[in-house]
Amino acid sequence: MANVTLKRIAEQLGLSTATVSKALKNYSDISDETKRKVRALAEELNYKPNSFAQSLRNRESRIIGLITPEIVHHFFSNIIKGVIDAAEKSGYLVITLRSGESYETEKRQLRLLRDKNVDGILISLSDKTINYNHITELIKDGTPVVLYDKISKLINCPKVIINDRMAAYHATKHLIDSGCCAIAHIRGPLRPQTTIDRFMGYKKALADHGIEFCEDLVFETSHLSFEDGYEIAGEIIKCPIKIDGIFAFTDLLAAGALHKLKENQIAIPDEISIIGFSNWFLSSITSPALSTVDQPGYLMGQKAFELLLKDIENKKQGRPSTAEIIEIPTQIIPRDSTRPGR
Amino acid sequence: MANVTLKRIAEQLGLSTATVSKALKNYSDISDETKRKVRALAEELNYKPNSFAQSLRNRESRIIGLITPEIVHHFFSNIIKGVIDAAEKSGYLVITLRSGESYETEKRQLRLLRDKNVDGILISLSDKTINYNHITELIKDGTPVVLYDKISKLINCPKVIINDRMAAYHATKHLIDSGCCAIAHIRGPLRPQTTIDRFMGYKKALADHGIEFCEDLVFETSHLSFEDGYEIAGEIIKCPIKIDGIFAFTDLLAAGALHKLKENQIAIPDEISIIGFSNWFLSSITSPALSTVDQPGYLMGQKAFELLLKDIENKKQGRPSTAEIIEIPTQIIPRDSTRPGR
Repeated sequence: MANVTLKRIAEQLGLSTATVSKALKNYSDISDETKRKVRALAEELNYKPNSFAQSLRNRESRIIGLITPEIVHHFFSNIIKGVIDAAEKSGYLVITLRSGESYETEKRQLRLLRDKNVDGILISLSDKTINYNHITELIKDGTPVVLYDKISKLINCPKVIINDRMAAYHATKHLIDSGCCAIAHIRGPLRPQTTIDRFMGYKKALADHGIEFCEDLVFETSHLSFEDGYEIAGEIIKCPIKIDGIFAFTDLLAAGALHKLKENQIAIPDEISIIGFSNWFLSSITSPALSTVDQPGYLMGQKAFELLLKDIENKKQGRPSTAEIIEIPTQIIPRDSTRPGR
Repeated sequence: MANVTLKRIAEQLGLSTATVSKALKNYSDISDETKRKVRALAEELNYKPNSFAQSLRNRESRIIGLITPEIVHHFFSNIIKGVIDAAEKSGYLVITLRSGESYETEKRQLRLLRDKNVDGILISLSDKTINYNHITELIKDGTPVVLYDKISKLINCPKVIINDRMAAYHATKHLIDSGCCAIAHIRGPLRPQTTIDRFMGYKKALADHGIEFCEDLVFETSHLSFEDGYEIAGEIIKCPIKIDGIFAFTDLLAAGALHKLKENQIAIPDEISIIGFSNWFLSSITSPALSTVDQPGYLMGQKAFELLLKDIENKKQGRPSTAEIIEIPTQIIPRDSTRPGR
C-alpha cells in the first residue's frame, strides 16, 4: 500500500520513489520546492500510507528534549522552569537530561533524544565540549535545535543568550564608578564562550577607564563553586598588589569570597568591594547582601522554547531554520557589597 | 490477523476474546492467573498480532513522568536530579512537569502523561490537592505510580518518604537540649501530611520533655518563603511570651526569620536559637550558619525511581504492585544558629 502511493506520487511528479520518501520524511538533502510539491500531491491524492502516517506521527511527538549542564543550580533551574512552563502552554512535554558538563554524556544524550523522535532539542553546551559535530549533524538531519546560554558561534541555529561581554563591562564599571582601582576578576575555565566574553568585558571596562590590565589580578577556577571562591579570596588577601574590588564570574564564587574576607575581618565594601553575576537567590541573603548582575533564567527558558517552536513549525512547512538570535537584557543589582557610585 | 490470534488463544483457554485482549493489555479487572496463562500461550503460539505488539510497545515507552510541586527549589531540584540520573542509568527518560502546588494543574498533568503512554509516574502531591481520585484511578487502570515526599496515606502505592515526625521531634529536642524552653514553631499550611507530621513531632518533643504546648507559639504560613519567615519573626519579637527558640518548617523560613532577628539586634543563638529543615545550600552560608535537618533529596529521587522500576517490572510480569514504603534517614546538622547541647 505504502509503495503504491509513493510510486503514484513519484510517477506523477517525475521523481524517484526514494526522493518522494525522503521528501515526506523532510530529509535535508531534498529541496524545499520538491518537498512542497510532494506534500501537496500526497494530500491531494488523500493517500496516507503507513510510512507517511508514521512519519507524521514521528514528526509530531509533541515532546522536546532539554539538555542542561546542571539541575541543582539557581540559574539553570530557572531556565528549566521557563522551558517547561512555556512548553506545557503550547501542548508540549519536556524530557530533561543533565550533561553534568561532560562532552561524552552530552553526545550520548543527544542520541537518546534522537532515538525517541523528539520534535526538537534545547541544549546549553557543556564546558568540556570540544567539537560540535554531534550537534551540526543533528541539525543537518533535520532536527530543530536551539542553543541557550552556553553556545558556540560555530553552530548555525537559533540561540538565546545574554550579552555577557556588555554585562561584565557594566559590572566592572560599577566597581570603578564606586572608586575601586585594583580590580580582581575570578573567572571560569577557558573554554565556554560565556567565560571568554565576561573576561573580555572586564578588560574593556578597565581599558576604557584608564586602568592598566594586570594578568596577576585574574584568578581562574574550574568548578565555579562556593569553595573555589573561598579559596581564591585567600590568594587575593595575600596578593602583593592591594586589591580593592572583585568581579566574580558567578554569585556562588562571590559568596565564597565574601565569606573568606569576613573571616579575615576585611571590611566589605570599604576595604574590598565585591560584585557577583547571575542574581542567585542566595546573593540577596548574604551579609552584606551581594551586588550582582541579574540574568533572567526563566525568561531565557521561555524564549528558547519559543524559538524552538518556530523552527518546529518551519520544518513542518519545509522552510529553513530562522537561526534567529535573541539577546536577553541584564541589569546591575547594586546591594551592600559595593559602594554607591560617585 | 490480530483477531485470529485472539480467537485461537481464547478458544484454547476457554475464555472470551475480550478477556484475552484485556489480559494482553494488562487491565486490572483481569486476574493475574488469567494474565499469566494468556501471555504464556501467546508466546508459545509465537503469535504477535499488531495489537499485542502495539500494546508491548506502549507498555515500553521507556519514558516516565515526574510531577513536582516546584523546580527552582533546593530540595525538589535535588530530587529531580536523583530521578533523572537513576532513570538514565536504567535506560529511561523523564518528562518533568511542575504542578506549582495546584490541584487542577496536577490533574491535567496526569492526563497529559497518561496520553503519552509513559511507563510510570512519580508524583509529590500539591498542597492544594483535595482528593485522590485522579491518582487512584490511574493506579487502578494499571499505570505504576510512586509517591514521594508529599504523600497521602489514603493512596495504596509505593512511597518514598522521610519520617517527618521523628525528624521534627529531633529538631525540637535539639533546641530543648541546648536550653530553650519557649519554642515557637513556624509551620506550613494545614493540608500536606509533611506539615502535620512535623507539627506532631514538635508537640511530642515538648510533651516528652515536660514543656507545656502553647497554641500561641505556633505560627502558620502559606508560602513557606523567605519573606514569610521574615514577617513571622516580626510577630515573634512582639510576642508577649519571651520566645527563646524557633523550629521552622523549612530553611527558607528560618533564613527569613534570622534576617529579621539580626535587623533587630537580637543575639543568635543566645537570645533566640533557630533550627530550620531540609539543609538547603543557603543554610550553610547565612551568618550565623543555620542549624537544620538534612533531608537527602537526591537519594529520595533515586529511591523513588527504583521503586517505580520495580513496579513497571511487576506490571510486565502480571504481578501486583509492592506498595513498598522506603523511609529515607534524616539527621540533625548543628551549626551556629543553635547552642551546643548541655
